[in-house]
Amino acid sequence: MSSQQAGRPRTIKLLVGYDGTGYSGWQRQKHDSTIQGEIESRLAVMTTEEIVLHGAGRTDAGVHAEGMVAHFRTCSKVSCEAIVRGLNAMLPGAIRIYGAEEADPSFHSRFSASGKQYQYSVFTGRIHPPQLRLYTLHVTSPLNFHALHDCLKLLEGTHDFSSFENSGSRDKDDCYGRGAIRTIYEAAIHEKTRELFVFQFTGDGFLRNMIRNLVGTLLDAGRGKITPEGFAGILQAKDRTMAGPTAPAHGLQLNKVLY
Amino acid sequence: MSSQQAGRPRTIKLLVGYDGTGYSGWQRQKHDSTIQGEIESRLAVMTTEEIVLHGAGRTDAGVHAEGMVAHFRTCSKVSCEAIVRGLNAMLPGAIRIYGAEEADPSFHSRFSASGKQYQYSVFTGRIHPPQLRLYTLHVTSPLNFHALHDCLKLLEGTHDFSSFENSGSRDKDDCYGRGAIRTIYEAAIHEKTRELFVFQFTGDGFLRNMIRNLVGTLLDAGRGKITPEGFAGILQAKDRTMAGPTAPAHGLQLNKVLY
Repeated sequence: MSSQQAGRPRTIKLLVGYDGTGYSGWQRQKHDSTIQGEIESRLAVMTTEEIVLHGAGRTDAGVHAEGMVAHFRTCSKVSCEAIVRGLNAMLPGAIRIYGAEEADPSFHSRFSASGKQYQYSVFTGRIHPPQLRLYTLHVTSPLNFHALHDCLKLLEGTHDFSSFENSGSRDKDDCYGRGAIRTIYEAAIHEKTRELFVFQFTGDGFLRNMIRNLVGTLLDAGRGKITPEGFAGILQAKDRTMAGPTAPAHGLQLNKVLY
Repeated sequence: MSSQQAGRPRTIKLLVGYDGTGYSGWQRQKHDSTIQGEIESRLAVMTTEEIVLHGAGRTDAGVHAEGMVAHFRTCSKVSCEAIVRGLNAMLPGAIRIYGAEEADPSFHSRFSASGKQYQYSVFTGRIHPPQLRLYTLHVTSPLNFHALHDCLKLLEGTHDFSSFENSGSRDKDDCYGRGAIRTIYEAAIHEKTRELFVFQFTGDGFLRNMIRNLVGTLLDAGRGKITPEGFAGILQAKDRTMAGPTAPAHGLQLNKVLY
C-alpha cells in the first residue's frame, strides 16, 4: 500500500479462493455479505478509488472457490505484491487472494475466459465427518458407479442443456447468443478416498445452477431412480421439469477458470 | 428411541468426532456451549434420565477430535443403534457420533485408556486456503525438518514433561501419582501434501496444553531459534519458562484413544 498517487490506468487480475459458507454468494448485494463486496470494499481502502471488481462468473450462496479469477481497473500505483499482502491482511480468512498480476487492458475475467472447471464433492460414508460437513454432500444410499459413468459420458460434447437450467435464470450478460448450448469438455468422477469422490466438470461455460441440477439428476441415476437411457432422454427433452432436484450449494466448488 | 422403560444399568461407550471451532472445549460449562454439554443434553432427552458423560480427556476450546471416546451409564433400554441415530439427528453437524456399544460395567473411558494419539496440522504454503484455515496452523517461515526430526526423537520414551506443562494446570484427577512423567511411544512427522504436514504424538497420556507447548517449541527449533541440543536442555530443565510459546488450538486434533 505504498504509493497511491494516481497514474496510468492499469488492469489487475486476481486469483481468489473462498469458503462460501456464510456468504450470500459472489455478487455484490446491498445488505448481505458477498465475496465481491468484501473484496471491493478493501480495494477501495487500498486504492482510495471506487473499485468495481468483475468476476469470471457468479457463485451462489454457500458455493466455494479455489480458483476464481476477477479483474479491476485502477489508476493507483500499488504494486501487485502489495495488493496481495494488503487484501489478505484486511480480508477475513474465509477469502484469500492467491495472486495478483498486471493484465492487458483488453483482458476481461469473464469475456476473455475460454472455460471453467467445477467440482462437486460427495461423502458416502455412514457418518458425515464434522470437518467435511461444509464442503461435501453426504449421500448414504448406495450408488451405481457404472450408471454414473454412463451418464457422465452422455454429457460430454456440445448440447442444449435447457433441462438443467433453472427456469427464468438465463444470464442477461450472455453476449454469445448461444442460448442454453454449452460444450462440456470433460465430465468425470475422481475418487479421493474410499468414502469421498468428486464429480468434475470442465466446459466452455455453465448455465445458472446447471452443475447442481446435473448432480441432483446424476445422483438419482446413481440410486437407480432413472436409467442412463432415461438420463439421455432428460438431456434431449430440453425441459427442466424432467430433471432431478438441485443438489445443495455446499458440495460445489469452482476449481479454475480457463483462458 | 423405541423402548425407554427403566431396565438394568448399562454402560455405553461412544466414539465421537467434532469440529471444535466455536465450542468452549469438551468440558461442560454453565453458560458456554461445550461438546460434553451438547451430547449430555441430547442423551437426557433420549433416555429421560439425567446423564453424565465421561470423556477420555478434555480438549480445549477450538481443539478438534476424530476419535474421542466417552461413556455414560443408563437404565434406559434404547438400543446402541438408536443412540447413534438419535444423537446424530439431534446434534449439530459439528458433533458426530461414529458409534455406540455396550461396555463392561468396569469400563471407564478415561481410567481404562492406555494412551492417546493426537495430531497437530501445519500448512506451509504461502497463502492459507480458506477450507483449511480452521484445521491447520499457517506457518510461512522456512522449517528445518532435520532439526524437527532430531527434536521429535528426543521426545520419545519416558520423561518428566514439566517444561511443557502449563503452570498450575496439573490435573486433579490424576490418580496415578506420576506427576509430570509421561511416556511418548511415538513422535513423528507425516507429510500429507507438499504444503501440509502433521506432527503426530502417541503416548500413555499428555499434560494439559502439553502438545500445544511441544509444537510451539518444535516450531522454534524448526525455524532455527533453538538447536536440538537446546531442545534437549529445555526438556531436561523441567521448567515451563524455558519452552517456546503455546501453539494455537485450531491445529490440534485428538485422533484416537487407545485401550
